[in-house]
Amino acid sequence: MAQQRATNITWHEGHVERQQREGLLKQRGATIWFTGLSGCGKSTIAYTVEHALVERGHLAYVLDGDNIRHGLNKNLGFSPEDRTENIRRIGEVAKLFADTGVVTMTSFISPYRADRDLVRKIHEDAKLPFIEVYVNVPVEVCETRDPKGLYKKARAGEIKEFTGISAPYEEPHKAELTLNNVDVTVQEMAQQTLDYLAQRDIVRA
Amino acid sequence: MAQQRATNITWHEGHVERQQREGLLKQRGATIWFTGLSGCGKSTIAYTVEHALVERGHLAYVLDGDNIRHGLNKNLGFSPEDRTENIRRIGEVAKLFADTGVVTMTSFISPYRADRDLVRKIHEDAKLPFIEVYVNVPVEVCETRDPKGLYKKARAGEIKEFTGISAPYEEPHKAELTLNNVDVTVQEMAQQTLDYLAQRDIVRA
Repeated sequence: MAQQRATNITWHEGHVERQQREGLLKQRGATIWFTGLSGCGKSTIAYTVEHALVERGHLAYVLDGDNIRHGLNKNLGFSPEDRTENIRRIGEVAKLFADTGVVTMTSFISPYRADRDLVRKIHEDAKLPFIEVYVNVPVEVCETRDPKGLYKKARAGEIKEFTGISAPYEEPHKAELTLNNVDVTVQEMAQQTLDYLAQRDIVRA
Repeated sequence: MAQQRATNITWHEGHVERQQREGLLKQRGATIWFTGLSGCGKSTIAYTVEHALVERGHLAYVLDGDNIRHGLNKNLGFSPEDRTENIRRIGEVAKLFADTGVVTMTSFISPYRADRDLVRKIHEDAKLPFIEVYVNVPVEVCETRDPKGLYKKARAGEIKEFTGISAPYEEPHKAELTLNNVDVTVQEMAQQTLDYLAQRDIVRA
């Protein structure tokens, strides 16, 4: 709905279409949903992909515990209900980011299949690409690595409802990409992710 | 932390700095918070500014009732507590958008000063520009316009706690910009907003 010309602008009302923003950015908005046990490497991979994308001129952003649990979701705990609401809110935010045209990566354990499927549906309803990436590392390996000492605390009973120890992790049945993070470098897994995004026409090859 | 060179990429771990994304986008991330009574013109102005920015090659996005109340905040009602949580969540999401480098506009009545001040603080803590725009229209004028027939329903008691009629609107004390939307075109108010953003070096003049 062009309205009138003032200075050098054609004024429009109403929403800007997603495709216009994607055209500016020369990429497609999408959500890359990393899921896996604590310590499996989700965030390291996501941030490595983010760096590589930004170096190639793409706009990417990572949502993770650091920027979500201390902000948007700071009023949620770790009960099953709160975990579900945690993931639901993150999914809704990721959808808005993807609608903006951003290559959005999320790095959360997100242990319940139903929660991940809900987020998938939110994206499907908005006709936005949702790419579930399962970072697959056996719990014994994660526990040996234990970079934050969380498994030790979980074994000592200092952390309740710890995924893989005292709370379930439901493996994805339909992940678009599975990264087996054992005897492989972060760079190789980041490259696999980038290749997949190029194959899906989300970013340039 | 450069790690190694694979294909043509220098691999990095850790977060991408906001300034890198802002450099790509040739703009600064910021939140433009429109506040005012129902029917005052917030969304119309915000979408007009969005269009003008995207035409100039800037990445902008509007958060409003349509994309928030049916998604992220669909589990909230209109009690004072829920209104506060509604605005808090929107503020946290706007902060993440601004951190991504997006010129983020929000269009919500946001009637309570304390709620808006909380959102301002969230942005100040993250060293992100927060620009409160008060769209100032007397309630009598909004009620006469009543584009959605909401004032009529509020008068008939069909909508409880309706801002300006049966619930308070607390005027901003420190809005960065006030748009008096009476006898002025949407284009003029959009231009005022664009001029202000250029003056603050958020977008190109």
